[in-house]
Amino acid sequence: MARCCSVLAAFLFEYDTPRIVLIRSRKVGLMNRAVQLLILAYVIGWVFVWERGYQEVDSVVSSITTKAKGVTTTNTSQLGFRIWDVADYVIPAQEENSIFIMTNLIVTMNQTQGFCPEVPDSTSTCESDANCSAGSTGTHSNGVATGRCVPFQGTVKTCEVAAWCPVEYDAEVPRPAFLKAAENFTLLVKNNIWYPKFNFSKRNILPNITTSYLKSCIYDAVTDPFCPIFRLGKIVADAGHSFQDMAIEGGIMGIQIRWDCNLDRAASHCLPRYSFRRLDTRDLDHNVSPGYNFRFAKYYKDLAGTEHRTLIKAYGIRFDVIVFGKAGKFDIIPTMINVGSGLALLGVATVLCDIIVLYCTKKRYYYREKKYKYVEDYEQGISDSEMDR
Amino acid sequence: MARCCSVLAAFLFEYDTPRIVLIRSRKVGLMNRAVQLLILAYVIGWVFVWERGYQEVDSVVSSITTKAKGVTTTNTSQLGFRIWDVADYVIPAQEENSIFIMTNLIVTMNQTQGFCPEVPDSTSTCESDANCSAGSTGTHSNGVATGRCVPFQGTVKTCEVAAWCPVEYDAEVPRPAFLKAAENFTLLVKNNIWYPKFNFSKRNILPNITTSYLKSCIYDAVTDPFCPIFRLGKIVADAGHSFQDMAIEGGIMGIQIRWDCNLDRAASHCLPRYSFRRLDTRDLDHNVSPGYNFRFAKYYKDLAGTEHRTLIKAYGIRFDVIVFGKAGKFDIIPTMINVGSGLALLGVATVLCDIIVLYCTKKRYYYREKKYKYVEDYEQGISDSEMDR
Amino acid sequence: MARCCSVLAAFLFEYDTPRIVLIRSRKVGLMNRAVQLLILAYVIGWVFVWERGYQEVDSVVSSITTKAKGVTTTNTSQLGFRIWDVADYVIPAQEENSIFIMTNLIVTMNQTQGFCPEVPDSTSTCESDANCSAGSTGTHSNGVATGRCVPFQGTVKTCEVAAWCPVEYDAEVPRPAFLKAAENFTLLVKNNIWYPKFNFSKRNILPNITTSYLKSCIYDAVTDPFCPIFRLGKIVADAGHSFQDMAIEGGIMGIQIRWDCNLDRAASHCLPRYSFRRLDTRDLDHNVSPGYNFRFAKYYKDLAGTEHRTLIKAYGIRFDVIVFGKAGKFDIIPTMINVGSGLALLGVATVLCDIIVLYCTKKRYYYREKKYKYVEDYEQGISDSEMDR
Repeated sequence: MARCCSVLAAFLFEYDTPRIVLIRSRKVGLMNRAVQLLILAYVIGWVFVWERGYQEVDSVVSSITTKAKGVTTTNTSQLGFRIWDVADYVIPAQEENSIFIMTNLIVTMNQTQGFCPEVPDSTSTCESDANCSAGSTGTHSNGVATGRCVPFQGTVKTCEVAAWCPVEYDAEVPRPAFLKAAENFTLLVKNNIWYPKFNFSKRNILPNITTSYLKSCIYDAVTDPFCPIFRLGKIVADAGHSFQDMAIEGGIMGIQIRWDCNLDRAASHCLPRYSFRRLDTRDLDHNVSPGYNFRFAKYYKDLAGTEHRTLIKAYGIRFDVIVFGKAGKFDIIPTMINVGSGLALLGVATVLCDIIVLYCTKKRYYYREKKYKYVEDYEQGISDSEMDR
Repeated sequence: MARCCSVLAAFLFEYDTPRIVLIRSRKVGLMNRAVQLLILAYVIGWVFVWERGYQEVDSVVSSITTKAKGVTTTNTSQLGFRIWDVADYVIPAQEENSIFIMTNLIVTMNQTQGFCPEVPDSTSTCESDANCSAGSTGTHSNGVATGRCVPFQGTVKTCEVAAWCPVEYDAEVPRPAFLKAAENFTLLVKNNIWYPKFNFSKRNILPNITTSYLKSCIYDAVTDPFCPIFRLGKIVADAGHSFQDMAIEGGIMGIQIRWDCNLDRAASHCLPRYSFRRLDTRDLDHNVSPGYNFRFAKYYKDLAGTEHRTLIKAYGIRFDVIVFGKAGKFDIIPTMINVGSGLALLGVATVLCDIIVLYCTKKRYYYREKKYKYVEDYEQGISDSEMDR
Repeated sequence: MARCCSVLAAFLFEYDTPRIVLIRSRKVGLMNRAVQLLILAYVIGWVFVWERGYQEVDSVVSSITTKAKGVTTTNTSQLGFRIWDVADYVIPAQEENSIFIMTNLIVTMNQTQGFCPEVPDSTSTCESDANCSAGSTGTHSNGVATGRCVPFQGTVKTCEVAAWCPVEYDAEVPRPAFLKAAENFTLLVKNNIWYPKFNFSKRNILPNITTSYLKSCIYDAVTDPFCPIFRLGKIVADAGHSFQDMAIEGGIMGIQIRWDCNLDRAASHCLPRYSFRRLDTRDLDHNVSPGYNFRFAKYYKDLAGTEHRTLIKAYGIRFDVIVFGKAGKFDIIPTMINVGSGLALLGVATVLCDIIVLYCTKKRYYYREKKYKYVEDYEQGISDSEMDR
C-alpha cells in the first residue's frame, strides 16, 4: 500500500520532457525555421483559411415550388385556332421538384378501342396473313396483332392490331416546335432551404426584395442575380443550347441552386447562386431515344357510353430544380482534428532537418555524437561504448 | 555488399528512444498531469463519447408512400351540394415524396376556346381599341389580345382576348376555405429507409406495432410518437400555424422524419422522430405570390365534338415528406484518425508545460540547463560550450 | 532593441532536435521495427490503398427519366375486350424519379353525386335509422352519412351516405392481377449524374453502347450489365420476389444505381451498377395496408351537363430510381490529415517499445538509467541526483 502510494506520488509529481540538443548554426537553424514556416503556412493558410477546416459542415435540405406563366396561340389544319394556357401545357399540374412544359406534340384524336392496321415499319408491313402472328406484340407496336394482313394506305399492307384506333403515327415531329412561343414563358421558383444541424433556414426570395421588384423582374446573371423568375429561353441559352432546337424533341434542363454558406458570418451573406445545365446530354453519335417525351390521354365518353380518347405524345422540357450546397460553422471537433494533424506535421520539420543534418552535412559525425547516445546491449559482449560523455 | 548488410543490421537491431529529463517537482508535475488529463478528457469524453468519433457515418436512402383518407361535403350556389373524396382532392393521384391536398378552389366551368373580354385590372381596362394592341400578352393575362376593346360588365370595358372563355376571375379567394373540413382528414405515411454502407434497412411501421393499433391510432408527439397516421390539422398545429388560415391560400408543410441511428446498439433503438415545419415561410411584409396554388383542367367534349373544360385553380397544402439522418457504426479509420489527433494533442501538454517551466518559473535557468545541450557550430569560432556535463 | 535582435537571431539560427538513446539490441530493435512496420502497413495499406484516404469525396447529383413500353389486352365481363397501352397504365404520365405501372385495378363506373347505401362492414350495417348518425364520417367510409338506414342487398341494410354513387366495393382484389402481362413490359431508365465538386458528369448510356444494341438489349446482371432497359418481371425477380404475387396488391421496387467513381483513374472506369430491392418490405405478421394503391377518377359529362366519373382504385408497382454513390479524387487536405494521423501513430511504436523495454525487460534499470535524467526540484531538499553523468 505504501509502495503503491509512492508510485502514485512519483507519477503525479513527475514531469518528463524530452532532452533537446540545441544546435547553434546559421544554415541548419534557418533551414529548420523555413521548413516549420512552410508547414505552419500550409496548416493555417490552406486548411484553416481556404478550406475552413475549423468548421463542421452540413448538407442542405430543401423544398421547392414552381409556377409557370404564359399564354400562346397556334393555328393548324388539324387543331384549328387554339389557345394554350398553363392548364394545357403543364403536365402533370404539379410536381415536387420539377415542372414539365410541353413545347411540341403529336395529337391523335378520337381513338377508340378496335382493330386497325399498324403503322408501317420493317416489322409490321406484310404480304399476307402468314406474315402476321396472332397475339404477338413487338417493343414498338401500338397493339396486339390479330394475325390478319390488311391494307394500310394505297397498296401498303400492314398487320392488323387490336389497339386504340386509329394508331398514332409519330414518325415526324412537327418542325418548328408547335409551342415555340414557350421561349417567352416565365417560371417562378420558390426555394426554402434548411440546415438541420445548425437549425438555419432561408428562402431564395431574399428579405430585401420588394413585391414590386418581384412583379417585374426577370433573372439575369449580371443585372438581376437574385430574381427568382426565369424566362425559359434564357435558361436554355445560359446553358449554351438553343431553345428552338430543344423544343422540338424535348429535353431536361437543370436549374441548379447552390447555397454555400459560411454561418460564422452574417446570415445575409448566405445567398443562392443559380446556374443552368442541360441534363440530357445529347450525343449526336448514338442518338437513342433523344430528348424527352411521354404519352398521355384525355378520355371522353360519347352518347352511347363508349369511351374514346385523345392521345397526346408530349415533347417538352422538364425543368429539374436541383438544390445543393454546404454550410459550415465553427466546431471544436474538426478544429482539433486539424490542429492535431498540423502539430504532427510540424514534427516532420524536425525529421527532415535531422536527415539533412545527420546524413548530408560535413559535420554529420559531430552532430550525431551530440544527438545520440549509443547503448550496447551488454549481454552482447562488448562493454558500453557510451559516446555521450 | 558487406557494408550494406551491416547498415541493414544496424537499422534492424537498433532501437531509438528520446532521452527524457524527469523533473521531480510537485508544482510542475501536477500541472503537467492536469493538462494531460484535460486533453485526455476532451479526446475521450467529447470526441468519443459525445460525438462518437470512432464511428463511420452514412446518410439515409429512403422511400415514401402516402395515403390520404377523408370525405367531406360542400353546398354552394355555384356547385350545389357536392361530395369530395380522395380522388377529387388529391392532385395528382400519386407522387413520390409528397401529397397535395386541395383545401380551397376557384372553379371556372364550361370554358371553351373563343374570344371574350379580359378580367379588368390596371393593364386590361380600355377606352377604345387604341388601348389594346393585338397579339400582345402580359405576364398575368389569360389570353392573347385581339386588339378590340369590348364591354366587360356594365360600363367597364376591357381588351378582348383569344382565350378559354369565360376567363377565370380569381381576385377573391373563398373565405373560409372551401374544404375547411380537410383539417380532419388523415394521412398515412409509409417510410422505408436504408443505409447502403451498413446494409441496414428499417421502416417506420415498427415491428412491435399491431394491426389493430394502426387502424385506430393518430400521431401525437407524447402519447403516440410512433403512429404513422397524421391528422392534417395536427400537423399544421404542431408546426405552430393555424390550419384554417393556411387552407385559404395554401402552403407547404414539411413532415420531417429523422432517423439518427447508432448501429453499434440494437436495431430496435433506431427509431423515427417526426417533426413538422412550414416550408413556405410567409413574410407578411413582402407577400409575393403567397401560399401554394396551381391550375388544372378537366376536359369534356360535347355532342358536336367541341372541347370544353372546367378550369380549377386549386389552393391547398402540399405535404413534403423529408427524411434525413445519419447512422454511425464503429470503424477503424475514423477511430485511428481521432486517436492519432488525440495523441498529437497530448504532445501539446508537454509543449505548454515546457513553456511555463522554461520561461516562467524562478528556476528556469536550472531546468533549461538540464533539458538543453547547446552545441555551437564549431566553424563559427568558439569551441563547444557544452553545458550538459 | 539590441536584446530583441539577439533573441530573434538566437531563435532563427537555432536548431533543436531531441536527444536520442540508441539501444543496440537485437530483441528490442527487431520488436521496434516490427511495430513500426505494422503501423506503417496499416496507414499505407488500409487508409491509403483500401479506403483511399488521400481522396476528397463528393456525393452524386442525378437526373432521371424513365419510359415504359408494352401493350396488353384483357377480356372481362365488366369491361369487355380492352387494350391497355402506356397512356392507360402509367399514372401520372410523368414523374421525376419514379414511374408507376398499374398492374391491377378495381373499376367503379358511372359514379354520380347522390345518395346510396354504404358498403356493409362492422360499422356501416344497421337495423334502423337509429344506428346511423347523420353527418358522421368514419375513416374508411365512402361518404357522409345521411342518418337513414336503407337496404343494400337482399336483407342486408346499411347506412345511407351522400357520396359518389354507387360506392366502390373493394373487398376483393382481382386474382390473378388484371394486367398480369405487365411482367413483360420494359422500362428504359436514362440517368445523368454529376459530381459538382469535380465538375464531372456522365450518363448511364455509356459512350461505347451502339444504337442498334440499345434497340434490342435487355438488362441482365451477367450478360448485359450496362443495358439501361429493364424487363419489369426481371427487376422483381432479381430482388427475390414474384412479379405475379406483387402485381396483385402492388408494391414499391427500388432500382438502385450505384456510381462509385475513382476519378484519379480514367473516366471510363466510372460505371453504373444496378441492383434491385423491394422497398415495401411486407411483413406477413402485421399486414397493415399492404402493397401500394391509390384512387383516381376520369370525369365525364353527360348531355344534361351532370358530371359522372369512373373511379379507379389502381394497384401497381412504383419503380423508384435511387441513385447514390461517391466519387473520390486526390486532394491535399485529407491526405495531410491522414499523414498527420499516421505520423502520430508511428509515435505509438516508440511508446509501446518503451513500456516493454523500461518495465518488462531484465535490464530495465540499465535502460532507464540511459534514457532518463532525474532532476530533483532542489528546493525539495536533496541535491541533484543526476544519474546521467
